[in-house]
Amino acid sequence: MRSEPWYDRGKMLFSLRSRVEMYEKEKAAMEGLSHKIYLELEEPTEEDSRSSWDRIQDALREKFGQVLPSLAVLQALYPCCEDSGWKITVSLAYSEQGWRAVRLEPGNTANHHYGYCADLGSTTVVMRLVDCESGRSLGQVSVNNRQIAYGADILTRIFYCKDHPEHLQELTAAARDSFLEAMEALRRATGIGPESCICMTVAGNAAMMHFFYGLDPFCVFASPYALRTTHFPAYDGGALGLPVCGMVYSSPARANYLGGDIVSGVLASGLDRQEEIGVFLDIGTNGELVIGNQDFLLCGAGAAGPALEGGVVKTGMRAEQGAVSYVKLRDGVFHLTVIGGGTPRGICGSGIVDLLAELFLHGWVDIRGKFLPEISEKIQWREPEQEWAVEYAPDLWFYQSDITEFIKTKAAAHTMVEYLMRQIGLTMDDVGHFHVAGAFGTYLDKESAVAVGLYPDIDRDRIVSEGNASLEGAMYWLLHRRTGQRMEEILGKMEYIQFGAVDDFLHLMVAAEALPHTDLDQYPTVKEKLRKLSGRSE
Amino acid sequence: MRSEPWYDRGKMLFSLRSRVEMYEKEKAAMEGLSHKIYLELEEPTEEDSRSSWDRIQDALREKFGQVLPSLAVLQALYPCCEDSGWKITVSLAYSEQGWRAVRLEPGNTANHHYGYCADLGSTTVVMRLVDCESGRSLGQVSVNNRQIAYGADILTRIFYCKDHPEHLQELTAAARDSFLEAMEALRRATGIGPESCICMTVAGNAAMMHFFYGLDPFCVFASPYALRTTHFPAYDGGALGLPVCGMVYSSPARANYLGGDIVSGVLASGLDRQEEIGVFLDIGTNGELVIGNQDFLLCGAGAAGPALEGGVVKTGMRAEQGAVSYVKLRDGVFHLTVIGGGTPRGICGSGIVDLLAELFLHGWVDIRGKFLPEISEKIQWREPEQEWAVEYAPDLWFYQSDITEFIKTKAAAHTMVEYLMRQIGLTMDDVGHFHVAGAFGTYLDKESAVAVGLYPDIDRDRIVSEGNASLEGAMYWLLHRRTGQRMEEILGKMEYIQFGAVDDFLHLMVAAEALPHTDLDQYPTVKEKLRKLSGRSE
Repeated sequence: MRSEPWYDRGKMLFSLRSRVEMYEKEKAAMEGLSHKIYLELEEPTEEDSRSSWDRIQDALREKFGQVLPSLAVLQALYPCCEDSGWKITVSLAYSEQGWRAVRLEPGNTANHHYGYCADLGSTTVVMRLVDCESGRSLGQVSVNNRQIAYGADILTRIFYCKDHPEHLQELTAAARDSFLEAMEALRRATGIGPESCICMTVAGNAAMMHFFYGLDPFCVFASPYALRTTHFPAYDGGALGLPVCGMVYSSPARANYLGGDIVSGVLASGLDRQEEIGVFLDIGTNGELVIGNQDFLLCGAGAAGPALEGGVVKTGMRAEQGAVSYVKLRDGVFHLTVIGGGTPRGICGSGIVDLLAELFLHGWVDIRGKFLPEISEKIQWREPEQEWAVEYAPDLWFYQSDITEFIKTKAAAHTMVEYLMRQIGLTMDDVGHFHVAGAFGTYLDKESAVAVGLYPDIDRDRIVSEGNASLEGAMYWLLHRRTGQRMEEILGKMEYIQFGAVDDFLHLMVAAEALPHTDLDQYPTVKEKLRKLSGRSE
Repeated sequence: MRSEPWYDRGKMLFSLRSRVEMYEKEKAAMEGLSHKIYLELEEPTEEDSRSSWDRIQDALREKFGQVLPSLAVLQALYPCCEDSGWKITVSLAYSEQGWRAVRLEPGNTANHHYGYCADLGSTTVVMRLVDCESGRSLGQVSVNNRQIAYGADILTRIFYCKDHPEHLQELTAAARDSFLEAMEALRRATGIGPESCICMTVAGNAAMMHFFYGLDPFCVFASPYALRTTHFPAYDGGALGLPVCGMVYSSPARANYLGGDIVSGVLASGLDRQEEIGVFLDIGTNGELVIGNQDFLLCGAGAAGPALEGGVVKTGMRAEQGAVSYVKLRDGVFHLTVIGGGTPRGICGSGIVDLLAELFLHGWVDIRGKFLPEISEKIQWREPEQEWAVEYAPDLWFYQSDITEFIKTKAAAHTMVEYLMRQIGLTMDDVGHFHVAGAFGTYLDKESAVAVGLYPDIDRDRIVSEGNASLEGAMYWLLHRRTGQRMEEILGKMEYIQFGAVDDFLHLMVAAEALPHTDLDQYPTVKEKLRKLSGRSE
């Protein structure tokens, strides 16, 4: 089973959305989870016979207070100090309870200061190698989460573990091995392996974190939805089977459906630091939503369905070689962008949104998403499937049921936002920025996303694609250790609202099951486009 | 090679000098390195869906602040909480930086709260199993230090490791295996194994500690005598290969010859807490000396030689079956106490001191320790050895050279005390108590020790045998976690004075090479005894 994230276009992307500018600006104040400190120490004499470690501790005290050496560091004192003429570099890792010395090296290696950040997704594990001195990403890889072998979806994996602790161990090992594979891929690409890395930050949803740390995850999906733990202390890499010399940190969760990935994402979006009210939407198989600012954060989560990621569309595929990624309809002819060029093999998320937007704007489907076969001979009744479909590329069809499925999903996403906004008496006019997180948003054409009603019809500048916000937040944490405290503040502000049980929610959702919405007045630019296009075709 | 400590008289002694009374008194204020806390938690509901760990943390917060769970504890949350109906016992271990949760058990096991303390000696490892709720010793064992296989004395072991890190690993493993053997012996005796123990405190000299933690120990015996480290953080048992669920703590050292064993001993003696000035003397192969009170601690250390432990005396042996342990001379006849009864096979430390005191007081040897053969036919010229000797038991001889060796050793001990006292302008009259630590002092007859000039001639009540003070200090620490801070205060007060190079020291030593001393006026009660005995024999 292939599961390349469609936005990676290959194993390795250098500095994709690495926010170098942001980090560069903050470099002066950079206060990461790790430090490398070069020390030139005085050699012991009979007059000054302080121990080797005392010399190091004394040199570090002013800046780092009491530092606890790992056993490996104590064991490395000799001959590292003597052989280097007492010129050594100490690697420090931060824990809630002070600094720990985790590695000694002879000479000055302070500029070789690396760490990892990772997004532990249920399908894909994305890992970035970070130069912690410059704050730059040196490389990024995504690998399959090896847990897929135990079930494509999380629920299957959870049931696989139920009452089978040995199965849980398999899933924990699979998560760890995915990280190890990513580390090796980064080593091949950069020449820098995990033994050179001090710390690692991880963001993932609650179920993924339970798997990673070897905690039974059944609680994530079973009433009363009380997790085993929301927080994970910083553990030595070794305790988790990861070969970094320092510690591994994972973002805390707010609740079962509001995991560390969302907390990390909110952090990356800066929602919690702004005066203006923002919307943070992460849409994938599940949709997670946060609305708020520095004073409050209202949250919701619900199932969205896999349609947005090409999972339901019959010719849907991940964003890899041969996938149609952009679609324009001009004079009844489809103009396609195909990843890697060549013959199209299917269509990925951004292509689906483009295609549907074009079909709708040009009147090939109506506001309910129903094909209007009379408008083009490309729309045909398909005997095998017993439904209407459009041939968007030679022998590739986009079906009526694909559209229906997609509209349901985008209606769910739209309704989560609308419902929460109503709860606090706000409209889109009160919102500053609309942050879209997740792989899905990265390559999406904003105009198309508004046209189908997935995004609200606001100034396009106010719609921000955050990319893998979970990963960005993890990287920010790696470079700013006070982020631990900030995430606590985020957790403290987060108010969780349950959808689903609410009648109102269903009514809102039915109204949203249209292109872009049954109330077209909510989408003035789409209305204007329709007016222009229908005028032109007249 | 047998190496039973002669004061143990068998593998196991229950509550030997366990200071039950002292601990009982302090029980109310007992604040150990570990705690077991029984909790009855509320089951999660949809209204209160706090995580399992949050429930525990919330219940512990008031008393213990933020508690860090070990990975094992997080992994044990399920099914421990559910299966026990949320009635669980949490084991807590203290670190410099706060409390850590290290074990979960279903139900109330708070009364099963155990720990170990140990004295890691170069020859013998003594370990005690402690009931941390009552503060009582449940059992004590001593086992050979398995490092003996690599050299009977420390220096041989150090050279074995020099430039051979793999040899150092062998010695580290040997120390660990000695602990494991002791734990198993304690399990056989008490039914309580290491899996039931939370914490372990260890005291030992600097070389032993370097071996135990796997640090190259060459620095201990080579100029400039700067150790690798004087302090060891609390590490998880697992990091050191020890199966306790909590942490292992080792006393810090002041300098190469003033190790954690002495710091622990001073602590046990209470020297550092008293207004009166006390003397703390630990005599074995090396002699360590501390003079002081709550305001100052003057320290010295030097080689004493193995004579006091029966190591040089030709028929000397450890205090085991067949050893002469006490000697009285009445009307020219030796009255002997033999360990285990039966035929004497040799003589142990307390026997040697007794024998020499009796020989001297009854005029069989003169003040220089020279035999006076005319006084008894038991003193004979031994052809094979070409020296005078006394037959103290059938076919067991005590030689002139044995006496000379012993006098040198006791002169060294005496002179260390005298030299340090002079440095600060004190005499024995200024001293409250004279604390004798180490196996040697435990069974020694005080009168005999004074008669030969090993102990000063002060009120016998002021001479206190501390037994294995190093072990007692380790036990105290286990039961009083603030001891960590107290040991820092002790280290801060300790002033180290070097002997040896000093001319004055050698002059004092020569003067002390007599029975009890060339200046008999320093020993008025011995002078009086000599007067009475010589009067009676007239």
